Amino acid sequence: MDFSKRIEDAMSRAITAGQAAPSPDKLARALHYSVSPGGARIRPSILLSVAAACGDDAPKIADAAAVALELIHCASLVHDDLPCFDDADTRRGKATTHIEFSEPLAVLTGDSLIVMAFSVLTEVAGLDPMRAIALMKVLAERTGMPNGICAGQGWESESKIDLAAYHRSKTGALFIAATQMGAIAAGQEGDQWEELGARIGEAFQVADDLRDALYDEEALGKPVGQDDLHGRPNAVTELGVYGAIDRMKDILSGAIASIPKCPGEAGLAKLVNMQAEVLTPLKWRASQASKIPGE
Amino acid sequence: MDFSKRIEDAMSRAITAGQAAPSPDKLARALHYSVSPGGARIRPSILLSVAAACGDDAPKIADAAAVALELIHCASLVHDDLPCFDDADTRRGKATTHIEFSEPLAVLTGDSLIVMAFSVLTEVAGLDPMRAIALMKVLAERTGMPNGICAGQGWESESKIDLAAYHRSKTGALFIAATQMGAIAAGQEGDQWEELGARIGEAFQVADDLRDALYDEEALGKPVGQDDLHGRPNAVTELGVYGAIDRMKDILSGAIASIPKCPGEAGLAKLVNMQAEVLTPLKWRASQASKIPGE
Repeated sequence: MDFSKRIEDAMSRAITAGQAAPSPDKLARALHYSVSPGGARIRPSILLSVAAACGDDAPKIADAAAVALELIHCASLVHDDLPCFDDADTRRGKATTHIEFSEPLAVLTGDSLIVMAFSVLTEVAGLDPMRAIALMKVLAERTGMPNGICAGQGWESESKIDLAAYHRSKTGALFIAATQMGAIAAGQEGDQWEELGARIGEAFQVADDLRDALYDEEALGKPVGQDDLHGRPNAVTELGVYGAIDRMKDILSGAIASIPKCPGEAGLAKLVNMQAEVLTPLKWRASQASKIPGE
Repeated sequence: MDFSKRIEDAMSRAITAGQAAPSPDKLARALHYSVSPGGARIRPSILLSVAAACGDDAPKIADAAAVALELIHCASLVHDDLPCFDDADTRRGKATTHIEFSEPLAVLTGDSLIVMAFSVLTEVAGLDPMRAIALMKVLAERTGMPNGICAGQGWESESKIDLAAYHRSKTGALFIAATQMGAIAAGQEGDQWEELGARIGEAFQVADDLRDALYDEEALGKPVGQDDLHGRPNAVTELGVYGAIDRMKDILSGAIASIPKCPGEAGLAKLVNMQAEVLTPLKWRASQASKIPGE
């Protein structure tokens, strides 16, 4: 199922609501700039897929949850690109927020997007207060300290890294939020959906390592070799390209096995299965096809 | 009434909860460093004063609201001190967070504190979901865009500043949040408490301008003349010292007149009245006393 239109519409509504006059024009434009055009909107798509598999009986709540999660993701990209972190000049093929606007405006953009994420969830609280609160709890846990993406970035300032905690918070956290929030938005318990999110997060981490090692700068839209540069752990360095692809497939099988009983279980399994192909870098697939033409 | 112990205890509980192991040690320490020792805890004190005036029938909710508000304030100080904003090396007589830890950790500290503010409110949602949600709405509105402290900072990047919107968001926002959240925490409507917060905010802005103009660096614990340096509007520049003090007193009279009917109305009025003395810089009062000994 393609949730793009639903996600983009909901994102636009949220950003526009944050720009009521009088407000500082540059910051207002920086907010819009930093969330659009979207990338693959992977996390909100997973969230809405899980909500759909659980019956999606309150689509406005699911939309708000999807937007809240994507806003946090966008905020993290804006702050991660800052000179004191990745010092990235480009992202998704255009100038990063601090390059296009300024460093102060990039800091404020990230801060405003974090706040907006929680604000969007309060807006639907009237429909079901307990779901809204449960969604905010998960979002806060997977964003801040000690288990969220802030903690994940924080590990990179440590001389001795707890690798499991690092990966779970750095890449896993927002995928766990995606599956849990999708279930909660549709009135289900979030806890049993943690494993699916964690495994999808692991698969994306390996896929990211593969892309980082194989893609060229033009295709990726950001400077390649960033991970190596900063000395972060990397599945390709550890296992080689073949090993990393095998690991990714194993992880996705585990992900499918972990899907809780729900009306849309089969469809969701199919969707996760398709990720293995989507996540294997095109360049690698092309190079393999040309090397072994008989197969 | 002195709320210090209540505030410090609640702050400690919140910060400690955000440091469960395994978490990155430096970021955990930076969180603690950035919220303690506290300054005057002015905003949470106002919040608890209003809650008390409204009956304070749910002190755990009021405590959470006070902590959430102070965490946002601390986050804003950490980010405002960054090299790309005020580039301040000291705050409250000690090194700022980015000097003591690093710039990346200071960015993450601010982000984590913002998230923690909302998290703290979700923790008391079980006691009264509707109050918790109303508190989060006010907190989000007064923190983010277009009306919160993020917007206030954002105005400083504009060539043409809407002065009313600038002051309301830059200094006023968290004072408005303080009075509104205090009322909401005690089960009252927040709206009618906006004016009191706005006026207290204005008074503090003028007091800040006075302090900035009169105090020496040692007493203030941060470099003096920061506002002038960055070309921000300033009541002392505009009205002179006498004029600024008169304006502050006028504003506080208006604040008292705006206090909504509530059980503790008289006590609250007395408290606001006392602020005029507290807010007039000591050095100025001392210099006046020596100049006019007969009075």
